[in-house]
Amino acid sequence: MFRTNTCGELRLADAGRRTTLAGWVQRVRKMGGMTFVDLRDRYGITQIVFDNEHDAALNDAAVRLGREFVVQIQGTVAERTAKNANLPTGDIEVLADSLTVLNPSEVPPFTIEDETDGGDDIRMRYRYLDLRRNPVRRNLELRHRMTMEVRRYLDSKGFLEIETPMLVGSTPEGARDFVVPSRMNPGQFYALPQSPQTLKQLLMVSGMDRYFQIVKCFRDEDLRADRQPEFTQIDCEMSFIDQNDVIELFEGMAKHLFKEIRGIEINEPFLRMPWADAMKYYGSDKPDIRFGMRFVELMDTMKGHGFSVFDNAAYIGGICAKGAASYTRKQLDALTDYVRRPQIGAKGMVYARVEADGTVKSSVDKFYTQETLQELRKAMDAEPGDLILILSGDDTMKTRKQLCELRLEMGRQLGLRDRNKFACLWVVDFPMFEWSDEEQRLMAMHHPFTHPKDEDIPMLDTDPAAVRADAYDMVINGVEVGGGSIRIHDSELQAKMFEILGFTPEKAAEQFGFLMNAFKFGAPPHGGLAYGLDRWVSLFAGLDSIRDCIAFPKNNSGRDVMLDAPSALDQKQLDELQLALAPAEE
Amino acid sequence: MFRTNTCGELRLADAGRRTTLAGWVQRVRKMGGMTFVDLRDRYGITQIVFDNEHDAALNDAAVRLGREFVVQIQGTVAERTAKNANLPTGDIEVLADSLTVLNPSEVPPFTIEDETDGGDDIRMRYRYLDLRRNPVRRNLELRHRMTMEVRRYLDSKGFLEIETPMLVGSTPEGARDFVVPSRMNPGQFYALPQSPQTLKQLLMVSGMDRYFQIVKCFRDEDLRADRQPEFTQIDCEMSFIDQNDVIELFEGMAKHLFKEIRGIEINEPFLRMPWADAMKYYGSDKPDIRFGMRFVELMDTMKGHGFSVFDNAAYIGGICAKGAASYTRKQLDALTDYVRRPQIGAKGMVYARVEADGTVKSSVDKFYTQETLQELRKAMDAEPGDLILILSGDDTMKTRKQLCELRLEMGRQLGLRDRNKFACLWVVDFPMFEWSDEEQRLMAMHHPFTHPKDEDIPMLDTDPAAVRADAYDMVINGVEVGGGSIRIHDSELQAKMFEILGFTPEKAAEQFGFLMNAFKFGAPPHGGLAYGLDRWVSLFAGLDSIRDCIAFPKNNSGRDVMLDAPSALDQKQLDELQLALAPAEE
Repeated sequence: MFRTNTCGELRLADAGRRTTLAGWVQRVRKMGGMTFVDLRDRYGITQIVFDNEHDAALNDAAVRLGREFVVQIQGTVAERTAKNANLPTGDIEVLADSLTVLNPSEVPPFTIEDETDGGDDIRMRYRYLDLRRNPVRRNLELRHRMTMEVRRYLDSKGFLEIETPMLVGSTPEGARDFVVPSRMNPGQFYALPQSPQTLKQLLMVSGMDRYFQIVKCFRDEDLRADRQPEFTQIDCEMSFIDQNDVIELFEGMAKHLFKEIRGIEINEPFLRMPWADAMKYYGSDKPDIRFGMRFVELMDTMKGHGFSVFDNAAYIGGICAKGAASYTRKQLDALTDYVRRPQIGAKGMVYARVEADGTVKSSVDKFYTQETLQELRKAMDAEPGDLILILSGDDTMKTRKQLCELRLEMGRQLGLRDRNKFACLWVVDFPMFEWSDEEQRLMAMHHPFTHPKDEDIPMLDTDPAAVRADAYDMVINGVEVGGGSIRIHDSELQAKMFEILGFTPEKAAEQFGFLMNAFKFGAPPHGGLAYGLDRWVSLFAGLDSIRDCIAFPKNNSGRDVMLDAPSALDQKQLDELQLALAPAEE
Repeated sequence: MFRTNTCGELRLADAGRRTTLAGWVQRVRKMGGMTFVDLRDRYGITQIVFDNEHDAALNDAAVRLGREFVVQIQGTVAERTAKNANLPTGDIEVLADSLTVLNPSEVPPFTIEDETDGGDDIRMRYRYLDLRRNPVRRNLELRHRMTMEVRRYLDSKGFLEIETPMLVGSTPEGARDFVVPSRMNPGQFYALPQSPQTLKQLLMVSGMDRYFQIVKCFRDEDLRADRQPEFTQIDCEMSFIDQNDVIELFEGMAKHLFKEIRGIEINEPFLRMPWADAMKYYGSDKPDIRFGMRFVELMDTMKGHGFSVFDNAAYIGGICAKGAASYTRKQLDALTDYVRRPQIGAKGMVYARVEADGTVKSSVDKFYTQETLQELRKAMDAEPGDLILILSGDDTMKTRKQLCELRLEMGRQLGLRDRNKFACLWVVDFPMFEWSDEEQRLMAMHHPFTHPKDEDIPMLDTDPAAVRADAYDMVINGVEVGGGSIRIHDSELQAKMFEILGFTPEKAAEQFGFLMNAFKFGAPPHGGLAYGLDRWVSLFAGLDSIRDCIAFPKNNSGRDVMLDAPSALDQKQLDELQLALAPAEE
């Protein structure tokens, strides 16, 4: 051992004790004949003192230390005269009598401080230095503690962690697979799993009863800020259960994590909101319910008064922003611009202020009497000082999604989206299918193995689009942290599902034959869910992106700029794989 | 919930209680007017009784149940008249008054029993049925418990589990990589990690101090019985430590696992055997020390007596098999054939029996006087009734490896390799390099980042082949369960190492530049090790192969016969990846 103590553990009670510490030089300060070195390791910072009067040569050596040098010091713990209340070790310092440079360091390309001067690109290229910074390191510590607690909880509930293979078969349904050429089977490819969905269902067929796995999954999608080509799932499945059992058990896990990780005790059950309500009141299947501002439909109130935009609309909906009547014209214009951005796509926004005397002043006053506007006010439950914002459109779902964006932006502006406040709910009763304009057919909203609600099964033949599923998402602060469903365990029902999804029996057999075969040998009723670990950690860490809770993330082109991967292969490797590059014509 | 109890939990104290059980039909026995059904789930088996006199229709339904049907029953717990002491639930049965078939089953292609009639191939194709068998399921339960305990132990020692990426860069050094074409970076490939070696070293540079990960690794090698293209490592690394610190901490982990998993308390420290001794006394760097039979070198005793085989040998070594003098000529011939097999390659074997009166009778009596044979007996420490077996050859290391095989075979024949007895040791002081005939150069025995022993560093210039490394393997019962080393943290020493290994500075920079760069910014002294989880589990499970402690293993052609992977890709997928198949000419 190069140390007797870490840089985070010495306290006043240790005064007088001999100690050996090792770590990185955070800072060197020369003050008169004394040199102060802040020595840092994962556990904290300890101040080391070198004194010219005690040992001039040693003090000289200390002065020459550079930032991020790795050193070992020996000395005696002493009480500080000027204590630092911001540091757990701030009551003491170590009077050094020995100094060994274990490794020097070049000057790092950015400062290793909580607030660094390094831009995103350089920090990613030198990620190993970025990880030395407290805020980044703490995210990885948090991630470790979360996975430990997830495992403890699930183990205590009888779940077995079972590893499923990484080299599996390609399934063209769903997102794009990453594939792996097989040298031993030339011309053939493995795929990396998008999720262990079918394998965990096979584990239920095999009687494993309760399975989980914290596992890497892969999707070759065009990347957005919050997506990585490889990501980590907490993947779970149970047998002989119904939807309520799954929800209760995993709600218990969420509460366990809130308590152990964030110190928040949640006693009341999570709200269970039907998908239809989530869309109606929040325009989203993952509503942020830290704040109200629920949608109010205004077709009855606002239609048919000569304002053609509303008169021609299929949907008119409003939100009431409490106390925001003071918004200036400029602020309101900015909001209008916000909803008009192509990503949101609204045509315009109508607003109405409730004045101190209760009268309503709107941006469309010339079309509406004060009487109608008072009806609006009543419908919106608005009080003096409130601001009503209204969107309309010819497609109800699209307009709701636009109104959702407006609501979230208003929540942000009004400070209603506190990162340290958490609002959890289950969204339930998802539609079984959604129409794909691109594919011109019904697609499974979750996946083709989702069980329809028993009472809706007759509608599979008559009105499949109206069928609801035994599917559920766990949503925290507007983030879908996890989701799952009860699965079909009956091969006839599964066959019917594939038929509705447009699979020929041959194609279904080709892609999912192994699963359908397995179901012939006694599949138990089962279901489960999967959490996105990266998202959940970043939520608990208060991060906007999942990147900083991943040790070595990839950039938006799917590159690891530190490793410089991917890269070209040797021709020899290509030959062994019996592959050739075939660049697309420009 | 489809059940109030599992099939493994009801006891005599529950008699009289109402219960609902769900599970698989293991067996149906009709005896007069009664039908007995053994209902099975992961937790056990419970006997269900249907009585014609109580409910004839129900009894009829029970009689018609097939093997592996999934059923739910309700009934009352009752004391059995004929108890079954072999079953934890054997004191009770459940008198059924309701039966629901949740899912029927086709007749499975092999019996779901501890000893099945299914061959290897069919069990792999229907692995989900094979996993229903107790011995296979128990291996996965064991694996779960082992990984839980590994995590508990390492967490308690301050280790952080940190996920490293699966899509990394290809490193042509070492085994062959599996590669993953990148669609977003056409013509470029990721590699799947052979181990997170360099990434965990970067985590030490980043100050993570103590890292571990239970992680999938990939090697595209030609497969043997005990190899899988994907396998799981317990990967660990620590900073500011020396070899002794690593050994002590991980010896502690091994003892923790022995105690928690196998109920074996090991109090004495593990033996630490220099590699040179392991080769000298056991002919192996992973000696099985459950039994003695150490090699004795016999050059002084047996050379120069006119037996040309020995006279021309560079090495003559023997083992003493206690009590085996009774071996017949036939048994001895079989042993000779054994060591002559091409996999072992010895030219022949000499034996000598110690008779009851102390005289020695050997297969080469005509060359040796009884006096010399008594010297042999003394050198071998052989007593009346013992059998001495001797091999010789012109290559010391090769002959030792042959003698090792003979020793292991004798240990097996004499019942000295009890699966329930465990002998652990560390093999230390490995050579830094080994000569590769194929490459005609020195290769790193562990990997190029291994630290040479401080006292041997001067020999890097003069006699590199003699340099020993700070490397260590943990060996249990002749199986290398793990191994590691102290790493080089000094970039100059690392550069010298690459030079000895025949890397040009350009090639070293191309392949490991990111690591060598990182080391310029303050790398701490560090080291670690990695365990092969599959092997360790199979050792604890008493298995010969690692296959049965893996849920969905691949066969010797690297195929998953259940999923039928790998398989051909759609042309569309190849086009998106800008790849073409290039079958090698026959």
